[in-house]
Amino acid sequence: MPKDPRSHRLEGRLTVLHRKLSHFYAVSEAVERALVELCTREVRFERQQAIVEAGEAYQAVYLLAEGWVTRFKLLPTGDRQIINFALPGDFVCFNATLFSKADHFLTAKTPVRAYAIEKNPFGKLLALDPALAVALTWANAHEEALLAERLASLGRRTARERVAHLFCELWRRLHLIELTDNDRFPLPITQEDLADTLGLSAVHVNRTLRQLRNEGLIELGTNHVRVLSMRGLEQAAGFEDGYLHFTEVGQLR
Amino acid sequence: MPKDPRSHRLEGRLTVLHRKLSHFYAVSEAVERALVELCTREVRFERQQAIVEAGEAYQAVYLLAEGWVTRFKLLPTGDRQIINFALPGDFVCFNATLFSKADHFLTAKTPVRAYAIEKNPFGKLLALDPALAVALTWANAHEEALLAERLASLGRRTARERVAHLFCELWRRLHLIELTDNDRFPLPITQEDLADTLGLSAVHVNRTLRQLRNEGLIELGTNHVRVLSMRGLEQAAGFEDGYLHFTEVGQLR
Repeated sequence: MPKDPRSHRLEGRLTVLHRKLSHFYAVSEAVERALVELCTREVRFERQQAIVEAGEAYQAVYLLAEGWVTRFKLLPTGDRQIINFALPGDFVCFNATLFSKADHFLTAKTPVRAYAIEKNPFGKLLALDPALAVALTWANAHEEALLAERLASLGRRTARERVAHLFCELWRRLHLIELTDNDRFPLPITQEDLADTLGLSAVHVNRTLRQLRNEGLIELGTNHVRVLSMRGLEQAAGFEDGYLHFTEVGQLR
Repeated sequence: MPKDPRSHRLEGRLTVLHRKLSHFYAVSEAVERALVELCTREVRFERQQAIVEAGEAYQAVYLLAEGWVTRFKLLPTGDRQIINFALPGDFVCFNATLFSKADHFLTAKTPVRAYAIEKNPFGKLLALDPALAVALTWANAHEEALLAERLASLGRRTARERVAHLFCELWRRLHLIELTDNDRFPLPITQEDLADTLGLSAVHVNRTLRQLRNEGLIELGTNHVRVLSMRGLEQAAGFEDGYLHFTEVGQLR
């Protein structure tokens, strides 16, 4: 069936965000138009390139089209805590509309393609473009919900539960934007990254991954994970997906 | 000096929020009016009363005028993770404007007085009342920034650093809304609550509090903490306050 010209135009540019938002609410034409109009300036970041550093002024808000972005804090001790990974369809640096300076680091984990959106103060953005303001606010609240769940992992889950929970979450986030491949999902991060995300040591992560593999729940490839039993992984994690607020996400069983 | 009638009217109702927001940006008369008009329905919750439970539909958004609210998750294992404490001037249940159901529990930790705001979808709220939408969005982003910093505590800080960091943060949040009393700040929570906030056991919290007391950094009272050396407490925590995005907060040294 031929698509209308608008959806064609969206196809190459905003599909991931559209897919993501459409799982949350009916994306109006106003939102689509807003995004198409705003996302004209394509930018690229190389692997490991800083997007913004803690203490710096934000340059722009970005809508991530391809690649992974790491949000992290560096403590005075030199320790690193990864806050989260931004995936395609996520806004990066949305705090640029609200805060003058970044309070953490954002770095391209893989080669990144994104659309830069002018960093209007939120109040102005809201007058200029209410639809984009709604999308940004949803993304912001969604990120907050993810961090709250991660807090539960770091505070009260075992290493096995933490790793399994993160994999369940990543699988769903990636599946939503159609970046899973049957039972496989991309994981372009190291065991050290996992450790710094989950409050564990790299050695502990390594042991935990081996355990999950030995239990027949996952298989680890180069830059990807194969989930052999999603139900088993969910049970290992005590995973309940309500906090993701995805309504129509397909389930891998 | 006599105050104008509008500030008089605000005095008893919205001062804490006003104080809070005014540290972040110049609160316009539009925001003030919006809040005065919206915050007409006063509600009260008794100590331990549920405001919303995980899985339930939200009833309203609340602006907290007095008291503490605990946001927490219950895991399938029965373990509890406290996400954060909402203080006067904070919005509670702002996700009511974005998500249909709560993904965590909100409970009055002390007797609570709040203003209920009708739970319009965010898009509608934004059309009805852009000023309130901006205030809510700021509060949301601010909460996210606090959770990101808490993640760093749970992931990469020692027990001593975690407790000291939380106390530095609470002192500043409470000082902003003028609820500190010289070097004392109210702390109407138990050691078990601290443990469930910081990913520790109650025994470990008890030992850590004793340690901080023995070091001459704090004194513990009934429902309050006295900070004997804020500089010492900050050093113990490795505390840097940039993530709070408070611009004009007085410093206790």
